[in-house]
Amino acid sequence: MNGQNKRIRLSDALATFSDHWSPRIIAELNGQQVKLAKFIGAFDWHSHADEDEMFLVIDGSFTMEFRDRSVELNQGDMIVVPRGVEHRPVAEKECSVMLVEPAGLVNTGDLEASEKTTTGIWLD
Amino acid sequence: MNGQNKRIRLSDALATFSDHWSPRIIAELNGQQVKLAKFIGAFDWHSHADEDEMFLVIDGSFTMEFRDRSVELNQGDMIVVPRGVEHRPVAEKECSVMLVEPAGLVNTGDLEASEKTTTGIWLD
Repeated sequence: MNGQNKRIRLSDALATFSDHWSPRIIAELNGQQVKLAKFIGAFDWHSHADEDEMFLVIDGSFTMEFRDRSVELNQGDMIVVPRGVEHRPVAEKECSVMLVEPAGLVNTGDLEASEKTTTGIWLD
Repeated sequence: MNGQNKRIRLSDALATFSDHWSPRIIAELNGQQVKLAKFIGAFDWHSHADEDEMFLVIDGSFTMEFRDRSVELNQGDMIVVPRGVEHRPVAEKECSVMLVEPAGLVNTGDLEASEKTTTGIWLD
């Protein structure tokens, strides 16, 4: 499965799931995966040693917290979190986000695995 | 320049240019570049031997033509064109698109270089 060569309607894909912090994989290209996730509340502080991670807000808004500052992201805003940089997404209300990151990236990064830990689930 | 670690507002980035078929590079991650482009009319038929290419419609709509079919893409729709597959984007009206593709990708792919040929221009 690679999600290539077909139209993917983000709103349709987002309508297929309702749980939070559990990215769905919608496509793969050049070793990267495109994922959709819904955020609410605060995720755990973490970093990814070797992977840059892109976040694009599809609906709603959230704040990307860094240890020294915060960046507020609204619909149509994106940020690339560089490898090795500690971060924590926080959403006051539910927010839908597209992620682009290397295939196999573990969402909790350098943390010990927990019930939140996932590399994403392919959306049928 | 890598466009990382800062908020990028797509609407602001799109407002900085008005020419067509000339992608602006807004960020780089894991060897891929995120670009914004404006389409109008028909581009040339081409393919990329070793590079998959993602298109996400930010504003407007366009049709991705393949040799055997066409896929209409509206705002919030995306498609990944697999490496080696001939394609041609066609937009009846101006359309704004986000692309994700390997750094250095040449927009005209396998074609002989023309005045359209570019690897993209970094947006300041």
